[in-house]
Amino acid sequence: MIELWELRGQNDRRYSNFSWRTRMALRHKGLSVSVQPVLLTDKASIDFSGGKTVPVIRDGARVVRDSWQIAEYLEKQYPEQPSLFGGDTGKSLCQFVNTWVDRSVVPIAFQALAGDAILVQDPTDQPHFRATVEKFTGKSPEALKEAQGKTFERLLASVDPARALLKRQAFLGGDAPCYADYSLFSVFQWARIVSPLPLLPAGDALAAWFGRVLDLHDGHARDTPAFY
Amino acid sequence: MIELWELRGQNDRRYSNFSWRTRMALRHKGLSVSVQPVLLTDKASIDFSGGKTVPVIRDGARVVRDSWQIAEYLEKQYPEQPSLFGGDTGKSLCQFVNTWVDRSVVPIAFQALAGDAILVQDPTDQPHFRATVEKFTGKSPEALKEAQGKTFERLLASVDPARALLKRQAFLGGDAPCYADYSLFSVFQWARIVSPLPLLPAGDALAAWFGRVLDLHDGHARDTPAFY
Repeated sequence: MIELWELRGQNDRRYSNFSWRTRMALRHKGLSVSVQPVLLTDKASIDFSGGKTVPVIRDGARVVRDSWQIAEYLEKQYPEQPSLFGGDTGKSLCQFVNTWVDRSVVPIAFQALAGDAILVQDPTDQPHFRATVEKFTGKSPEALKEAQGKTFERLLASVDPARALLKRQAFLGGDAPCYADYSLFSVFQWARIVSPLPLLPAGDALAAWFGRVLDLHDGHARDTPAFY
Repeated sequence: MIELWELRGQNDRRYSNFSWRTRMALRHKGLSVSVQPVLLTDKASIDFSGGKTVPVIRDGARVVRDSWQIAEYLEKQYPEQPSLFGGDTGKSLCQFVNTWVDRSVVPIAFQALAGDAILVQDPTDQPHFRATVEKFTGKSPEALKEAQGKTFERLLASVDPARALLKRQAFLGGDAPCYADYSLFSVFQWARIVSPLPLLPAGDALAAWFGRVLDLHDGHARDTPAFY
């Protein structure tokens, strides 16, 4: 049984996009997981990891932090289970997609979602989150919320290369999902968990793909507190 | 012997970024190639392909057009030669990178390079190219050239996810190049062939990677008329 530390908000919302990458990777590998929810401001609970961010996993005596490091660990430690990467080239290109998500998509998503996200966070975490939002964007969550329509448009434009590919195939990984799917999925799952305003228009190839990923692993990602 | 049709400019400049993807794929597969240069406005020479764009290859009785289709063809037809994709997942993710280059990088590169590119084209092609530039950008090549400094900055920012990865590894494909490397390489090769102003600053992780790709296959891509 692998233990996973991840963030929780009000009403048990598990909103961390990075933790969703790890959750899906663990499920992809068919591993049993025990989840330990923590607050954003509760650094003491994850002190043992040597870091200040989730996700963190503990697998027996082994502690691994950072969602990408965890994916690498799982692939190496459980080679007989379904592959996350599909080989060396696939691993390298999954890391490219993961980096593309982190650098070209997540920063826009953060601006698009911060105004909603603060409302589902635990009251204990809200002042810290507000300060983080203002530090990184120069704006208040409320000001970002007012601009949300336009920021959603930018976010949907930023994922255009994925949309073009997903018009032609079921997953970024081809006929079957790979870790790159989970990297991108995590952004839309984050949106679904924190924001009442649906992000993906019906008919968008990404909406159909998102539904397919929600259905994976017995609907694991669908079955979590969310707005839609 | 495979025949390849590709564009030529003045002084034998082979400036088509899409054809460079095909050139590198053919070399990666260790195949012998006979190159047939054509002008942009000479559609009659490639009528046999059923399309109006290069690259086109003819391999015996088989004609294939479109650089991605050609890569798929080569991988399937020559499975015993070094793989371009590294398996099914790698193929799918190479297509993602190829699409990302086409949609997030090439449009900016086109604006960044058009003002120089027209000067190396054959005089026969220049009026057609000018009309294409004005249609797609709403600006003249000369106006785009005036804004080149800022457009270069945007271009260098657009490839940030690749830069982050290439700080940690030799190629997008990992220790060895894959088709995704050739997709991205083709943009910087295009710049090198048409623009006297070096695009990649010394010290940029992409500059070191670009040098490594130029060195591949006995320096095949280095050995072509270019500005630097």
